Amino acid sequence: MSEEVGVTVRADSLGDFCARVFDKMDVPTDDAAVIADVLVAANLRGLDSHGVARLKRYVNGLRDGVMVARPKIEIVHQTPCTALVDGGGGLGPPVSVRGMKLAIEKAREMGVGFVAVRNSNHYGIAGYYSMMALREELIGISMSNASVLVVPTFGKDAVLGTNPISVAVPAGQERPFVLDMATSVVTQGKLEEYSRRDKPLPLSWATDERGVPTADAARVLKNVLIRAGGGILPLGGAQEEDGGHKGYGLALLVDILCGVLAGAGYATTIYPRTPEGKPLPANVGHFFGAIRIDAFRPLDEFKATMDDIIRRLKSSARAEGAERIYIHGEKEFEEEERRRREGIPLHPTVVATMQQIARELGVEYNIPLSLWLKDELLYTAYI
Amino acid sequence: MSEEVGVTVRADSLGDFCARVFDKMDVPTDDAAVIADVLVAANLRGLDSHGVARLKRYVNGLRDGVMVARPKIEIVHQTPCTALVDGGGGLGPPVSVRGMKLAIEKAREMGVGFVAVRNSNHYGIAGYYSMMALREELIGISMSNASVLVVPTFGKDAVLGTNPISVAVPAGQERPFVLDMATSVVTQGKLEEYSRRDKPLPLSWATDERGVPTADAARVLKNVLIRAGGGILPLGGAQEEDGGHKGYGLALLVDILCGVLAGAGYATTIYPRTPEGKPLPANVGHFFGAIRIDAFRPLDEFKATMDDIIRRLKSSARAEGAERIYIHGEKEFEEEERRRREGIPLHPTVVATMQQIARELGVEYNIPLSLWLKDELLYTAYI
Repeated sequence: MSEEVGVTVRADSLGDFCARVFDKMDVPTDDAAVIADVLVAANLRGLDSHGVARLKRYVNGLRDGVMVARPKIEIVHQTPCTALVDGGGGLGPPVSVRGMKLAIEKAREMGVGFVAVRNSNHYGIAGYYSMMALREELIGISMSNASVLVVPTFGKDAVLGTNPISVAVPAGQERPFVLDMATSVVTQGKLEEYSRRDKPLPLSWATDERGVPTADAARVLKNVLIRAGGGILPLGGAQEEDGGHKGYGLALLVDILCGVLAGAGYATTIYPRTPEGKPLPANVGHFFGAIRIDAFRPLDEFKATMDDIIRRLKSSARAEGAERIYIHGEKEFEEEERRRREGIPLHPTVVATMQQIARELGVEYNIPLSLWLKDELLYTAYI
Repeated sequence: MSEEVGVTVRADSLGDFCARVFDKMDVPTDDAAVIADVLVAANLRGLDSHGVARLKRYVNGLRDGVMVARPKIEIVHQTPCTALVDGGGGLGPPVSVRGMKLAIEKAREMGVGFVAVRNSNHYGIAGYYSMMALREELIGISMSNASVLVVPTFGKDAVLGTNPISVAVPAGQERPFVLDMATSVVTQGKLEEYSRRDKPLPLSWATDERGVPTADAARVLKNVLIRAGGGILPLGGAQEEDGGHKGYGLALLVDILCGVLAGAGYATTIYPRTPEGKPLPANVGHFFGAIRIDAFRPLDEFKATMDDIIRRLKSSARAEGAERIYIHGEKEFEEEERRRREGIPLHPTVVATMQQIARELGVEYNIPLSLWLKDELLYTAYI
């Protein structure tokens, strides 16, 4: 695809297609809509590696029986402020939305609510769930553990996931603060992008099978797949000098809350396989939280102060050569506005994969594609 | 001081001296003991920049009236799970111990407890308070905002503090997990150490008055003092490539919870000064939390799983050239054992400053010094 030619799709058409795919895979209609919404939300926010590019993995998971279409989701244990939820081996988004709703209900009632989820799967973008709290003007927290990709400081083998942390905080006139970060330097998606383009990695990102920094993205991805050693480095890099032990600590903290506290998989016990290498249910864990602001301070005061801190940061002096100082979530909100207007740009391989899924499942593929040359819309058509 | 000659003091003598200093400054006896314990705990854990090296600042703060010796500490607002506490402008440790105790009480009762503190001062090591939860087999959380030192990503001016996060989690047979990290690449203490030794900084640590990476520690420290621009970089460095926006996001999150939510100072409003440059009460904010493990999962199961994840990490393969994989807090626990046995090594300037404080306040200086040559104790004497 040339840089000047772009193909975009409308969010609603994309979501509708995804929902029909999950419907066809025997996922209950409401759950199918939730999963589709979580995937498309990632694309809208510009986080394409967590968007419909994941559709195939979800479909394969359901087809192979490692993900359950109609899981038995149950509250294993609860107190007025906390709960442990079992996802029954289903897809991540439905149980995560339920878990986060439960945390929000508890926070509305008690000021604070925390819900751990076990026996789940990949849940998409962490920020989807933390941002659910914003509608209720609560602080929202969302974390998940993930497949093993990240090496501990001084370690050769990947033992932890990219384990994201998201915290969303409402503001007044300003947009909310939405931190949504992998605790590794980069995500797997970024490595895949470099590998596709055959671009050398910065040496601060990943290590090879000896545990030594490498620029070879394809090698790192292959190594982690076959567990040959090496992986992505924690935030802060390979050494303690730049704080690599801090990123490692954050990744481990997420694994403790999502894996150990929830009774889910953790470290190398997540995404288990049979001795023959056949995948078993992943047993991913999540941790959700909601905090009512007026449990501490009047909401209007808080929101006015949020506006002030945001404005102080955004209007503070820029470093030489820098154009703008951002607040977390700001880029993604702007991208979402643009993509709702202009459509979501999709890589041709992602389009081809969706068409293949449609053919295999006998689902109608009816996503109109808009073709752009530079910033000019050429035409929109069904293909 | 040659590398081979060492001077150490006993923790109890050091704590006793500090407590007597605060007693003399009209701090209530119980509070004086708490402050001394927090300072010495930092030295015992090897975090010397947060130990008795801070004594002079605390004494000066009390003498100048920007810290209150007998503050009116009050609970401004509370719910069964939350509280907002006003520190009355007193020293950080006493109100922080009370705040954390309150969070622990609430967690024991309700499963979760969170306490925000405003109108406080520097509270020492974040981990002191999170670790208080370990005695009750709870997960402990501690954060604080701090004086302005850290630049946002793409920013020239320091707008945030090194804003530490600490989370402590109990284990079974293994030592607890104690994450205690500044959200910046390094702390001010580290820069001071490089400045003292005239050692060039790694270019990933700090920026100069133009916002450009610099190796000149003394210049950075001078610049932040007079607010000339530049400062310490957030965890992940100057650019988004290595995740600098993540460290910036964590620092901002801490400022939101400790400053904005608590109604304390935040961003550049913390540590205010008069137009003439005279310091005013700092209005530092803290955020404490405690979580009862059995609100989610039986404690014995949790502890056994903590042991397993810790052992998996510690026994995982090491990177080429690496000697050992650590769990967070492990180095500090080992250092504490060593320093309880061999004493706390103090820099001669720290000893001289304590002696000066003793003379000025008319407090007896009776800390016996042990002199070591390599690993051999030469003698212990009062000086």
